[in-house]
Amino acid sequence: MEGVDHLAHERNKTEFDVDAMKIVWAGSRHAFELSDRMARLVASDPVFRKDDRTRLGRKELFKNTLRKASHAWKRILELRLTEEEAGQLRNFVDEPSFTDLHWEMFVPAIKGQGTDEQQQKWLPLAYKMQIIGSYAQTELGHGSNVQGLETTATFDPETDEFVINSPTLTSSKWWPGGLGKISTHAIVYARLITNGQEHGVHGFIVQLRSLDDHMPLPGITMGDIGMKFGNGAYNTMDNGVSKFDHVRIPRNQMLMRVLQVTREGKCVQSNVPRQLIYGTMVFVRQTIVANASTALSRAVCIATRYSAVRRQFGSQDGGMETQVIDYKTQQSRLFPLLASAYAFRFVGEWLKWLYTDVTQRLQANDFSTLPEAHACTAGLKSLTTAATADAIEECRKLCGGHGYLCASGLPELFAVYVPACTYEGDNVVLLLQVARFLMKTVSQLHSGKKPVGTTAYLGRLQDLLHCCCDVQRAEDWLKPGVVLEAFEARSARMCVACAKNLSKFENPEDGFAELSADLVEAAVAHCQLIVVSKFIDKLQQDIPGKGVKQQLQNLYYIYVLNLVHKYLGDFLSTGCITPKQASLANDQLRSLYSQIRPNAIALVDAFNYTDHYLGSVLGRSDGNVYPKLYEEAWKDPLNDSVVPDGYHEYVHPILKQQLRNARL
Amino acid sequence: MEGVDHLAHERNKTEFDVDAMKIVWAGSRHAFELSDRMARLVASDPVFRKDDRTRLGRKELFKNTLRKASHAWKRILELRLTEEEAGQLRNFVDEPSFTDLHWEMFVPAIKGQGTDEQQQKWLPLAYKMQIIGSYAQTELGHGSNVQGLETTATFDPETDEFVINSPTLTSSKWWPGGLGKISTHAIVYARLITNGQEHGVHGFIVQLRSLDDHMPLPGITMGDIGMKFGNGAYNTMDNGVSKFDHVRIPRNQMLMRVLQVTREGKCVQSNVPRQLIYGTMVFVRQTIVANASTALSRAVCIATRYSAVRRQFGSQDGGMETQVIDYKTQQSRLFPLLASAYAFRFVGEWLKWLYTDVTQRLQANDFSTLPEAHACTAGLKSLTTAATADAIEECRKLCGGHGYLCASGLPELFAVYVPACTYEGDNVVLLLQVARFLMKTVSQLHSGKKPVGTTAYLGRLQDLLHCCCDVQRAEDWLKPGVVLEAFEARSARMCVACAKNLSKFENPEDGFAELSADLVEAAVAHCQLIVVSKFIDKLQQDIPGKGVKQQLQNLYYIYVLNLVHKYLGDFLSTGCITPKQASLANDQLRSLYSQIRPNAIALVDAFNYTDHYLGSVLGRSDGNVYPKLYEEAWKDPLNDSVVPDGYHEYVHPILKQQLRNARL
Repeated sequence: MEGVDHLAHERNKTEFDVDAMKIVWAGSRHAFELSDRMARLVASDPVFRKDDRTRLGRKELFKNTLRKASHAWKRILELRLTEEEAGQLRNFVDEPSFTDLHWEMFVPAIKGQGTDEQQQKWLPLAYKMQIIGSYAQTELGHGSNVQGLETTATFDPETDEFVINSPTLTSSKWWPGGLGKISTHAIVYARLITNGQEHGVHGFIVQLRSLDDHMPLPGITMGDIGMKFGNGAYNTMDNGVSKFDHVRIPRNQMLMRVLQVTREGKCVQSNVPRQLIYGTMVFVRQTIVANASTALSRAVCIATRYSAVRRQFGSQDGGMETQVIDYKTQQSRLFPLLASAYAFRFVGEWLKWLYTDVTQRLQANDFSTLPEAHACTAGLKSLTTAATADAIEECRKLCGGHGYLCASGLPELFAVYVPACTYEGDNVVLLLQVARFLMKTVSQLHSGKKPVGTTAYLGRLQDLLHCCCDVQRAEDWLKPGVVLEAFEARSARMCVACAKNLSKFENPEDGFAELSADLVEAAVAHCQLIVVSKFIDKLQQDIPGKGVKQQLQNLYYIYVLNLVHKYLGDFLSTGCITPKQASLANDQLRSLYSQIRPNAIALVDAFNYTDHYLGSVLGRSDGNVYPKLYEEAWKDPLNDSVVPDGYHEYVHPILKQQLRNARL
Repeated sequence: MEGVDHLAHERNKTEFDVDAMKIVWAGSRHAFELSDRMARLVASDPVFRKDDRTRLGRKELFKNTLRKASHAWKRILELRLTEEEAGQLRNFVDEPSFTDLHWEMFVPAIKGQGTDEQQQKWLPLAYKMQIIGSYAQTELGHGSNVQGLETTATFDPETDEFVINSPTLTSSKWWPGGLGKISTHAIVYARLITNGQEHGVHGFIVQLRSLDDHMPLPGITMGDIGMKFGNGAYNTMDNGVSKFDHVRIPRNQMLMRVLQVTREGKCVQSNVPRQLIYGTMVFVRQTIVANASTALSRAVCIATRYSAVRRQFGSQDGGMETQVIDYKTQQSRLFPLLASAYAFRFVGEWLKWLYTDVTQRLQANDFSTLPEAHACTAGLKSLTTAATADAIEECRKLCGGHGYLCASGLPELFAVYVPACTYEGDNVVLLLQVARFLMKTVSQLHSGKKPVGTTAYLGRLQDLLHCCCDVQRAEDWLKPGVVLEAFEARSARMCVACAKNLSKFENPEDGFAELSADLVEAAVAHCQLIVVSKFIDKLQQDIPGKGVKQQLQNLYYIYVLNLVHKYLGDFLSTGCITPKQASLANDQLRSLYSQIRPNAIALVDAFNYTDHYLGSVLGRSDGNVYPKLYEEAWKDPLNDSVVPDGYHEYVHPILKQQLRNARL
């Protein structure tokens, strides 16, 4: 039944103003209108269709991505889109392509690390796409340990050039997107060597391919690194390998904003603070957190809608069966993820503010908040990406068997999302950085140094070590302050316990290594506290729209009480709450599930995703799942013929053979 | 460096007899030799190569699977393999195909549900593959709720036939493997209707396609249901859809071992007990548990070997960097999974015994242990498949960025494994069945009914509700009995808490629905206890081989103490252990990681997997990872040409266009 809204009965239950919630989700009316416009633009353009993506072989898939990227660029120019609009358009095209690293890494790297002259020379070329850039940092042998990169850039004073070289197989650049087949240029990271001395790892603008015939330039070997996880997903991108055999580039193609190499090969530090790179990291990771809430919300939207469509068991006398969303087991898995999507959205919003704040301080030469901001963004990157990756797969499982079909959209969403746990800082490595910062903060408390920003609560350490959770009845969990204090106390106590255990080691580094698993857990506790506190901040803002605040409050309590349940070991072992209080938290949680239930569909409608962007038959806005699943099946290439290719050669002979002496 | 063992330095550290451990892992010398022989046979045959699988488009991939399946059958006949050998050979071919359901579902269903005459008629045809069968149970609208299936089989007394019909779109059979393109026959499950009355869901042998030209028979619509999760993976299988439009089959094609329909259309119960079907379920789920340990051990083998090859950070003065397997964060994630692989192996072995035991009892009309055996296998299926699915993805993450490449083998292993969480009983639905059985067992304690088998511990309920964990120092956790009692107490107390909360509801079914999330947790605790206790049983057997028992003991303690840590909330909230004891468990765990570390490579070597079966460049037995990764990359179709297809059409025009009025 085309045109019928099979979820109308669900939408009729809604107790709040969905349009107002859409603005809350988008962050502002401007952001909502922008993304709404761009999403529709993409959805209505047949070139951007993507439902066939998982059926395509690698070459076909890749060619199709080139076609879409080229079309996107054409539309961006024709419609004279702003940079912000163009970014949103690419976002809704929803397909990794060579243009991603060009805009998100190559251009920002030149802006951040290039001198004024370098920016003047290269940015116009990049902005007009007269060159296409990649960002070549990771190597076959090195990812997390950037200082261990093996590629060298040796200054040759005779010719005033750098010689870029890959001395070993493991020094091959490996992974950079676009490098494999398309990029004409890349920022190549290499160990700077001048006058026989090493000066650390720096970025160099290297032309890779001829702008005439696209052939790799002499001395450069390049290719695609092969298939990656999933159908479609990142296989639309030519992640590449490149080896450099003494490739020469002019001296002025080293990015020299921070460190300059003179004509004589001398290294001169500029007066631009090195800390600038941390500002860039804050920016990149803030984007990743925002993307986490997007990916998570897409998965939750699919699982929520399908859970309302799907019915199973519970029919009495031939009546309708029960919608699976009405099962408490389904709710207790799904609703905390819905709440997490909102929680991550708000902490992402706050990180945007933090980036602005950090940037302004850097410009005023104030580096005081930088370590805290750096730790906080690193931790939130880790927390949100890990939770999102798990949540997408959980949403897939919540869709039962049909979630395993590519038509559900969830397999590709998972496959395309999971690398976020590894890129831009492996999640565990990042949490160890957070832990290191926390241990430093705790150790400096004695010397009276006041912790700032997200660590400010550690300034109230004595209170937090001795506070008692004030919950006697289930409703007490809804008292403002109770939850926050429990989370602060848990994090503070875990930090102090780690610090105490560390102090037993003679060599602090040995202790850090030995106790690293505990330290990671303390870091997670701290990062969850940040998410919790930013959600509270959001609730304290003026939120217009009927019932919107009430829904957000319910989501907040679901988010936090589910964490209390999931990390109960932390809360109990640190004595922050009692087993009785934990049990009351569970009771309260069940009651919150019942309260959110009638609003579940509207809460995912508020994400305002088009069916095109969602890319899921199970998550269709109109709930018309089964006929569309059936329709979709026939599009598989295997259904091109009734009798499949290979039948006559391989199956028919089996059916017709005369067996005499088999032992079976 | 071909032929060099890059992991030799690791293997030199081994403190136990690896060959003896291989026998332990395989279960017996016979099982070891059989699987070793079959694995080598497959690995040495070029037709069975699979490293190109993730690069193939759907049609090519499917055709190649037909080729392999046909070749496997040819080899099985040529070598006159036994049924057991043939099963192992197909196992090591390691590719889902239409023969899977034929051997694992179609043949067993006829054996289990067919009358003697039916078996005499159909089994020889099936054994010679003169017909190829599928197992058509699930429908578009129904999976878990088998009693809700919509397909009908109406008896027509005039013609002595059943009329098989799909009355709705949602009644289309959906998912059965092999149905899409290959099967000639299927056991179709349908609601039996005779004389206008319904008699529940039964199986019917239906011919689907002509044995001459392979065309679907009149009234039957069939096709493939489309792409599924991942590259390669289950896309080698033609999971299918079929609709029946009043298709007629002879009466004697209903499987009538338990219920017979007479010429007049009367239903007659046979004297064969209905409970037989539970015996089959025990068998199927036992296989699933065995497969879980296999899948998990493959992932762990890859991650362990690569963790010993990969080095990152920690280099002092240009020396070698630290092997990532030496980081405690890596150990604390990896070693519990290694231990779980062994734990699941042993519980799987025990389930094999249980199946034999149940079968013998059924033959003697003793149904007393059946409910317990059924609950126990359902729970273990859920527990092991959920843990394995998560573990494969964790192993992928433990391989860092390169784990995302298909060449790592882990993406396909994950994609092909995850449906195990859903098929043969959705994991949450199964846990609810376990919970229901546990609640019944607890409620019957008052009436003096003695719990049997894996629930026997509940007979000591009073002791378990009041016992105290006897751990003062970290080493106390290694005392026999301490761990088992803690797990028994935790499970018993969680069961009792659930029972108490349930009793507060007037309608027990309302209570069960409302508290289902808690009930699931109690069921998990009970199932973990089973795994723990079967591991203990294993350790109490006579285990030959130098150092083998010591390694198994270490793995056992890693398995259990990691569970204590991971489910700390359970143990603390039920008062089974104290926070101090939890902390001591953690200390002990770290010490166990250090003890297992030098043996880690040998412990995964003991799985005896060929490089062919493992299918992973990262997990290569010789550790020669980087050159092989590099080599593998060039095989991608995108590398067939230097300038990719689509460049001239889509990219070159962008680079060369003259922009005048863009706003960017």
